[in-house]
Amino acid sequence: MRADIDQILKALKTVLPPSDRPIGLHEPEFGAAERAYVLDCIDSTFVSSVGKYVDRFEEMLAEFTGARRAVAVCNGTAALHVALEVAGVARGDEVLVPALTFIATANAVSYCGARPHFVDSSGATLGLDPDKLDDGLARIARMVNGACRNRETGARISAVVPMHTFGHPMAIDRLLSVAAKWNLAVVEDAAESLGSTYRGKHTGRFGAMGTLSFNGNKTITTGGGGAVVTDDEALGRRLKHLTTTAKMPHAWAFGHDAVGYNYRMPNLNAALGCAQMERLAAFLAEKRALAARYRAAFAEVPGVRFVSEPADSQSNYWLNALLLDEDSADLLPPLLERTNASGVGTRPVWTLMHHLPMYAACPRMDLSVAESLARRLVNIPSSPILGRS
Amino acid sequence: MRADIDQILKALKTVLPPSDRPIGLHEPEFGAAERAYVLDCIDSTFVSSVGKYVDRFEEMLAEFTGARRAVAVCNGTAALHVALEVAGVARGDEVLVPALTFIATANAVSYCGARPHFVDSSGATLGLDPDKLDDGLARIARMVNGACRNRETGARISAVVPMHTFGHPMAIDRLLSVAAKWNLAVVEDAAESLGSTYRGKHTGRFGAMGTLSFNGNKTITTGGGGAVVTDDEALGRRLKHLTTTAKMPHAWAFGHDAVGYNYRMPNLNAALGCAQMERLAAFLAEKRALAARYRAAFAEVPGVRFVSEPADSQSNYWLNALLLDEDSADLLPPLLERTNASGVGTRPVWTLMHHLPMYAACPRMDLSVAESLARRLVNIPSSPILGRS
Repeated sequence: MRADIDQILKALKTVLPPSDRPIGLHEPEFGAAERAYVLDCIDSTFVSSVGKYVDRFEEMLAEFTGARRAVAVCNGTAALHVALEVAGVARGDEVLVPALTFIATANAVSYCGARPHFVDSSGATLGLDPDKLDDGLARIARMVNGACRNRETGARISAVVPMHTFGHPMAIDRLLSVAAKWNLAVVEDAAESLGSTYRGKHTGRFGAMGTLSFNGNKTITTGGGGAVVTDDEALGRRLKHLTTTAKMPHAWAFGHDAVGYNYRMPNLNAALGCAQMERLAAFLAEKRALAARYRAAFAEVPGVRFVSEPADSQSNYWLNALLLDEDSADLLPPLLERTNASGVGTRPVWTLMHHLPMYAACPRMDLSVAESLARRLVNIPSSPILGRS
Repeated sequence: MRADIDQILKALKTVLPPSDRPIGLHEPEFGAAERAYVLDCIDSTFVSSVGKYVDRFEEMLAEFTGARRAVAVCNGTAALHVALEVAGVARGDEVLVPALTFIATANAVSYCGARPHFVDSSGATLGLDPDKLDDGLARIARMVNGACRNRETGARISAVVPMHTFGHPMAIDRLLSVAAKWNLAVVEDAAESLGSTYRGKHTGRFGAMGTLSFNGNKTITTGGGGAVVTDDEALGRRLKHLTTTAKMPHAWAFGHDAVGYNYRMPNLNAALGCAQMERLAAFLAEKRALAARYRAAFAEVPGVRFVSEPADSQSNYWLNALLLDEDSADLLPPLLERTNASGVGTRPVWTLMHHLPMYAACPRMDLSVAESLARRLVNIPSSPILGRS
């Protein structure tokens, strides 16, 4: 049966509280701790590159995710860039990334002087499809002296960046097998999946490194911010060094031993992050409660399904999503118009990477599932407060 | 006459207030407005990529510098990187930068895939020496179809990045003549010179673009932050677009038309910046008063001179500096030891760029003045509060 926009709007409104202002897609929430820590930071004058909140925020992230080390940086894009560099991605390489992702995933590859090579998504997880990747590599790549080479372009394929779309864990264990077979470094783009686990282990901890984002629309925010998590202490030290201009420790002298980056998270932003981390467990519970309500509300609505967490995983439901049936995909534009016009913030998924002018000529595999998903996905309001009982 | 460390320490202590804790090189100062604006930002929930403080901070910077447009970004390094890209610096180019500068100047060139080509400094300004640059180019470069080419490396030399060292304006008008002669784009690294003018015009406004920094140790701080200023509206729009992921405006859709950057300044940091801008005029007056006291205190101290603003310019005296005479250069290490040990924060100038391992093989001109300055310069405490009457 075809979807009906009135029915979808009605179902949304059974879940969402009455509101006299538009309901955003994802809005941050702050309280007494956020105000207190930020003021403490200002009163101490340590608002910048050193300070206790950066250390504490990194410790809180490590503890929450279970990673041995977390390195806070200025945003999720910076986290991806430096992680790819540390993973060994070099100029002229290709890096496998999903076509269905936020622009940062592909841009970070570009910053390394490498080219993104686009891979299809799985309808079950919305993340990169490891089996389709394996099949695709079998067709176009071969191993030469232990390195995966694209036979068509001649480039080395050095890494793969799975992304946990909307917070839903992708099939990371299967991806690790495929990556091992083709000797690909794995950097997990966990920008959207703070609090999401796969078989009980936090996303971002399966690859050599995982990256997080604390942009204003994320589950927790530091204004702008990101982090790299890793279980490898040596990688952690390298990440910290490269993100702090590769400066060698000294009381006053300025020596640097590599082309590093000014990717520090300021202490002011980390102060906000520490307060937000204290609320993370509550936010996650509220977000899952909201998802459960959406799931129930859309159970009987024809032509559309609510996107639920994949098997073996627990999602943070960062952005809740509806998926229109194929034969209702034409309703996506009017659905976006109608919902936004009636004060319910919605948006489609990102334009697929290979449709953007600067990435149109990059190598890619068959992307039919991503194409289909992009025609049919719509994100719906997902702020924690909407799930508060 | 040789310098004497005891006399230098004594002169410093006549200027500096008694203190029971170490006096830092440059410490930020915050008050009621900083607290109020940051709390307002948190209470509004607009802490991230949009918000009124970013717009207001950009307007305040434009008004203060007289530039038509200021674009706030996450730090001074990001400002330099995007400015160089917008100036047309391309992969394989060489970019002329002083050997005596902070690492960001050279790193930003590297991020563009270009190589820094190191130029000597002037003893009068501590900045790039335009005449020596012109002579050096005459020896190694020639114009080919309107482009400056290095005859030795074959690379195009596309830009020059003068830096206003410690806030002292370099000889920018002479530099502009040399740049015009060799068809070089000029991006001014004004990271240190907010409030410094050359012939009444703010530094950073002479080149196509100028970059500022608001790191914790700068004249004003946003925690971490920077900006690009320009008088060219089209460049300003391009800078804003590229620093905000090159996203095309749309109520909900995600389209991007270039490989952009996530270089936004978060609204939280801009809130701090707005409050700091309100104090900038006072900070500058206090810093200049402090410089005047140092100048007087060191007038009769042998073997060392206080570094004063160059002719035709007004300096913010971001970091005050002493310059040991050549025959007292050997006293620099014990002077640093003694001052820091006695609670007076001092440091030498940065390690010259061509002495760092990653830049050791880059092209360079004769650097004898920079070498001499680096052996003899020492920065001394420069916080505004030290100049308060």
